Amino acid sequence: MSTAAVPLVEVWRGSLLESVHCGHVAISDARGEVVEAWGDPDATIFPRSSAKMIQALPLVASGAAARAGLSDAQLALSCGSHQGAPVHVDAVSRWLAALGLREEALRCGPEASRDKALRLQMIRDQEAPTQLHNNCSGKHAGFLTLARHLEAGPEYVDPDHPVQRACLEAFETVTDRTSPGFGIDGCSAPNWATPLAALARAMAVFATAHTRDDVLSQAAARLTRAMQAHPVEVAGEGRACTLMMRAARERLSLKTGAEGVFAAILPDRGLGIALKIADGATRASECAIAAILVRLGVLDAAHPDVARFLNAELTNRRGLAVGDVRPVTGLAASASQSLKSSRA
Amino acid sequence: MSTAAVPLVEVWRGSLLESVHCGHVAISDARGEVVEAWGDPDATIFPRSSAKMIQALPLVASGAAARAGLSDAQLALSCGSHQGAPVHVDAVSRWLAALGLREEALRCGPEASRDKALRLQMIRDQEAPTQLHNNCSGKHAGFLTLARHLEAGPEYVDPDHPVQRACLEAFETVTDRTSPGFGIDGCSAPNWATPLAALARAMAVFATAHTRDDVLSQAAARLTRAMQAHPVEVAGEGRACTLMMRAARERLSLKTGAEGVFAAILPDRGLGIALKIADGATRASECAIAAILVRLGVLDAAHPDVARFLNAELTNRRGLAVGDVRPVTGLAASASQSLKSSRA
Repeated sequence: MSTAAVPLVEVWRGSLLESVHCGHVAISDARGEVVEAWGDPDATIFPRSSAKMIQALPLVASGAAARAGLSDAQLALSCGSHQGAPVHVDAVSRWLAALGLREEALRCGPEASRDKALRLQMIRDQEAPTQLHNNCSGKHAGFLTLARHLEAGPEYVDPDHPVQRACLEAFETVTDRTSPGFGIDGCSAPNWATPLAALARAMAVFATAHTRDDVLSQAAARLTRAMQAHPVEVAGEGRACTLMMRAARERLSLKTGAEGVFAAILPDRGLGIALKIADGATRASECAIAAILVRLGVLDAAHPDVARFLNAELTNRRGLAVGDVRPVTGLAASASQSLKSSRA
Repeated sequence: MSTAAVPLVEVWRGSLLESVHCGHVAISDARGEVVEAWGDPDATIFPRSSAKMIQALPLVASGAAARAGLSDAQLALSCGSHQGAPVHVDAVSRWLAALGLREEALRCGPEASRDKALRLQMIRDQEAPTQLHNNCSGKHAGFLTLARHLEAGPEYVDPDHPVQRACLEAFETVTDRTSPGFGIDGCSAPNWATPLAALARAMAVFATAHTRDDVLSQAAARLTRAMQAHPVEVAGEGRACTLMMRAARERLSLKTGAEGVFAAILPDRGLGIALKIADGATRASECAIAAILVRLGVLDAAHPDVARFLNAELTNRRGLAVGDVRPVTGLAASASQSLKSSRA
């Protein structure tokens, strides 16, 4: 993978380049045609949490979501990597209660809240993190809802469980590829690998889903809208996905994944984006996806909630500005701007 | 820098490669002859904290350390990035008191302790981190000791302050290069850039210092011995530098730096090693330096405190093994082993 990766993000300290992040980007339409790419669009990647909206497809398409009366906010939570703030923990807790289940039914494992105030409060109160605080607990509440609908057993993260078989079928349908295999994710669910361009194609399938009538497309369209309408449920206050979805100048559903992945759905363009930083760094994936979205005109580089990712100032322990994280020259420039500068 | 970097470390999930870390390594003798290299040994890097033993040279060579009666443990602390455990915080506190100074004299800024028990206790007690907890507070206590000896002012991190001018002179002497410039480090001290091979050469100057009689060499030899004799002061319990120095089968002084840097002093070989992961990842720098030291026979791959860095198991939030961080094939193999496997 690394040999074909190209520099996307630079880390500067003073007037010297200190570190570089390489990666791959694919922008695709729904037929799978790659309209623009950096690095190797055929690189096989684990989408990690960037595939959560794909994993939520069977929840909606099966009728399980309708039967359980799930709201758009709950669907956004099922597609989200929330930060375990009270708003998220309470919502998942109520969702499980409505299913007649308790925290013990989850199989995602406990994780400390990423909401600073709550995390510190729990340390002070000597409260241990629970599975509700796990950033994947909304996805898992969705899995449990589908498991009940399918009348399947409690071990819903087993790759052979009907829930995971349904997720794989949806994944291979929207990526239009047979997955070469899976890894076990941080939350214990199987995570299926696919070429980067196939993940971008899947995002374009979501982006164009509102133009089609089949059940899977209707499910994709509803999840896309739910993410747009509930950016806090997808991540949380201060997080990249939430802030960039809010800052978008057109419709955008955006989802990060561990190890430097981003997936973006652009309904107004009918396009999908998939991005992987080869070394897995989040500081680089956030900068690079901001740059690509600025390049496409979806984000405004001057918006403060875009600028903070596009050009992240590095400060030290005395609060002094010591450097920044920035996209490589030209990455954030629109095609017409690039043309102009190459002619200058 | 990135184009010449070569893959050094791989991150696997299940049976698939998920992420890759590229970088540069130089092994040099004291004349500056590179005996083995990966990537670009001429890549300009910031050594960050891996240069702390160089920054401590004027402290000893000037006579300031002797005048203040500094112990080897204190000298190791001046070369260290400690984790702010009680043993470190108390030692720096006593050191400042002996100088008639208080925490306010430091210019490193406050940092939360990296010692988990202390960090959690301070949160429970609503105690704010102080500058004593900063991983660089030992280096800064050394700076203050030198500043007093030089009868210089309190703003000892200014690049034009006599302390920093002395550090630059020592840096350019042992690297045998004029530095192209500095950046401001996390602790606010200037950090001077140099080619990777020049940092390796500097480490070899330390490694051979015990064979020479000049004042700077005697200072280098004493700091090298102090680091070896006091591995806890260099980092702390559970940390890579401390554990690998203890596990070494011969004399080894080892120092990490932010943004994926390691520097190693091998007195029995008369060699120095410098390593930079291009993307700045610590998980990769720890794995790669372990591999290089195993390759050279300095570390035993089977030692548990080596194996944990050489082949770091990744576990998820339910404690399941989901993958590992490992060196690229052949990196940890000795030259004779490489030969054997290439013939097989």
